[in-house]
Amino acid sequence: MPRLGLLPRRAFAALLSQLLRPPRTACVRALGGHSQIAEAMVTSQLKPHQEKPSFIIKTPRGTRDLSPQEMVVREKILDMVISCFKRHGAKGLDTPAFELKEVLMEKYNEQSGLIYDLEDQGGELLSLRYDLTVPFARYLAMNKLKKMKRYQVGKVWRRESPTMVQGRYREFYQCDFDIAGQFDPMIPDAECLKIMCEILSGLQLGDFLIKVNDRRIVDGVFAVCGVPESKFHTICASMDKLDKISWKGVRHEMVAQKGLAPEVADRIGDYVQHHGGVSLVEQMLQDPRLSQNKQALEGLESLKLLFEYLTLFGITEKTSGEKVRTTETQVFVATPQKNFLRQRLKLIAELWDAGIKAEMLYKNNPKLLTQLHYCENTGIPWVVIIGEQEQKEGVIKLRSVATREEEAIKREHLVAEIQKRLSQS
Amino acid sequence: MPRLGLLPRRAFAALLSQLLRPPRTACVRALGGHSQIAEAMVTSQLKPHQEKPSFIIKTPRGTRDLSPQEMVVREKILDMVISCFKRHGAKGLDTPAFELKEVLMEKYNEQSGLIYDLEDQGGELLSLRYDLTVPFARYLAMNKLKKMKRYQVGKVWRRESPTMVQGRYREFYQCDFDIAGQFDPMIPDAECLKIMCEILSGLQLGDFLIKVNDRRIVDGVFAVCGVPESKFHTICASMDKLDKISWKGVRHEMVAQKGLAPEVADRIGDYVQHHGGVSLVEQMLQDPRLSQNKQALEGLESLKLLFEYLTLFGITEKTSGEKVRTTETQVFVATPQKNFLRQRLKLIAELWDAGIKAEMLYKNNPKLLTQLHYCENTGIPWVVIIGEQEQKEGVIKLRSVATREEEAIKREHLVAEIQKRLSQS
Repeated sequence: MPRLGLLPRRAFAALLSQLLRPPRTACVRALGGHSQIAEAMVTSQLKPHQEKPSFIIKTPRGTRDLSPQEMVVREKILDMVISCFKRHGAKGLDTPAFELKEVLMEKYNEQSGLIYDLEDQGGELLSLRYDLTVPFARYLAMNKLKKMKRYQVGKVWRRESPTMVQGRYREFYQCDFDIAGQFDPMIPDAECLKIMCEILSGLQLGDFLIKVNDRRIVDGVFAVCGVPESKFHTICASMDKLDKISWKGVRHEMVAQKGLAPEVADRIGDYVQHHGGVSLVEQMLQDPRLSQNKQALEGLESLKLLFEYLTLFGITEKTSGEKVRTTETQVFVATPQKNFLRQRLKLIAELWDAGIKAEMLYKNNPKLLTQLHYCENTGIPWVVIIGEQEQKEGVIKLRSVATREEEAIKREHLVAEIQKRLSQS
Repeated sequence: MPRLGLLPRRAFAALLSQLLRPPRTACVRALGGHSQIAEAMVTSQLKPHQEKPSFIIKTPRGTRDLSPQEMVVREKILDMVISCFKRHGAKGLDTPAFELKEVLMEKYNEQSGLIYDLEDQGGELLSLRYDLTVPFARYLAMNKLKKMKRYQVGKVWRRESPTMVQGRYREFYQCDFDIAGQFDPMIPDAECLKIMCEILSGLQLGDFLIKVNDRRIVDGVFAVCGVPESKFHTICASMDKLDKISWKGVRHEMVAQKGLAPEVADRIGDYVQHHGGVSLVEQMLQDPRLSQNKQALEGLESLKLLFEYLTLFGITEKTSGEKVRTTETQVFVATPQKNFLRQRLKLIAELWDAGIKAEMLYKNNPKLLTQLHYCENTGIPWVVIIGEQEQKEGVIKLRSVATREEEAIKREHLVAEIQKRLSQS
């Protein structure tokens, strides 16, 4: 909470006018006066003009100062972000804090209450920018540019209502990186995701999950489920709330508020609750209804290509759509056969003793598929498989969960081979 | 002059709403859409909704975009300024772009028309800050701080009238360095001037002159010349115009507009036209009238002390075509052959991961010449070339854009070789 100080209004004004010089004065000052102001503000000891009402010294609602401590943190973060943008060849751009109201107005159809308007003091009608995308589009248009890779880091302003409660501020920074232009599909998209990964990894925030989507898939799903085209936009807006409220709540909004047929909502619900990476894409491509929808098909093919490029960028795991990993397990010990519990126990102990983080299922005879699913769900990257065949040949199989490739490795080299792979990733 | 584009209003809005996503979307985007917008804005070829009136795509009056070229210049300047502030031990601070109107209001008595007010949309009455000093004073008061050496670099806004004519903008940066607190006389003042010198020298702007003054001398001069105390403020405001209009003009304003006796104005004129450094201070100390005025005497003694400190700081004397690159890209990844996209993607990721700033074209099969031209136009110094021949031999070619020399380098040594060359340049 900001601390507040009380001060007789005229005293403050008097001090200010004493202290402050006309606009054009130089930027570097030594001002004993500041401490006088501060002192006067705090102690209210200035004698004259005390008859006027006091007012509270504070920052506007939903805004805050950044203290020197906080500035150090922000500077580090922004340096990291900007140097990443530069590493990827982006140019810098800056635009004014406000734009012609007309330029900003017509986007936030429902939410235009979010925009800060400047008072009409004669002249143009202006509003504070609420993002950096519209100014970028305006810049491109004004300068007749069709192609530009630019970054922009700056403040934006939104009149969100009970801001402080949710920890949302009305003034905040945005760091934008955009590639404008027409290119071959998914290449710039893959680079943007690569940048995100570099930044999030660089900031060392721990594990993260990047969700990707293609609007054509959403539209295709809507079409296949029977949403009338006139309702696409509003139903999509409801769906956007899934990261804040449950499917039940979203469904209720779709049906009760937006007049969607309950059975249509339920069909959407079937799709909406899927989560996954490239395997989900493959699965959806097999969906007989979806795969016949042109838009969905295009979207799914694009995502497939995107995942391929991401793999080449070396970031599959992180965009695989698996949940945030809550464990650090590196290897899972599995078997395809019954009665291999004892061999699994021996094996896993060997891993543990070598300092390798390992898990197995606590069942005598688990199914192989169950074991592999467990790895996918929890994000374990490697599986060691031991079965009759392997035992006979004195090997074990090492399987990569992401690529599904399997390799036979001599039993006695197992630990060394695993350590080699872990040190590479 | 900014170039302007015309665009049917609804078309713009329609495109925007198609392009833009809700506020909470991630910051990194690849938007083919931007180019669509820009294109539509420029060519006005969008068919639907042409019935609505067009509006002009421009920045608000008195504001401007900073192009990538200008951004490079500003970044260099601000880096220089901020690193100087840090060298002198200042802490960073940031405050909101707007303040409670009450906090800002009462300073600009006559000029309050300069302040941008936000529209009253319910809630607090706010105004954009017109400098960084008032927010700093407010910060000190709010946090009950009596002492602080802080810097703040940020935009401020002023509704100056025929701004463009004079080259004045309504949005501009200020770089403030302030030492708030009570100290022994002239020590912080001397440090502030030292900082100014370091910055102006560092920016290599050529010779410069810093003008110093002490308000007590001005007041003493006014008293000695016979200006009534009630007119001090307004006569001072006239005198402030001396850097824009001649003494004749200023005198006329004092006499005709502000009712000063002509002989009083002439006495001021005698003083006002003196210019000089420490020798002028000595000369004024000898002035029989001035040296008997307590205020003037204090002011002159202070300036004498200041000049002594400045000499100790070693700054007495001073108080008397290449193409701008807009990116920092170091290496470009090129190919002479078709179907080498995947190899390029892998290669560039390797460079990025090694911290090397790299770019490539987002085309499946770009022409080599196009790729090399891109490097020349954007000033990228190195090109990595991968083709069939190179792949077969397990090498890549490293080409210097400036000398056009090419060298084959083993694929696995690529990163090391590039880093070697970059560290040499």
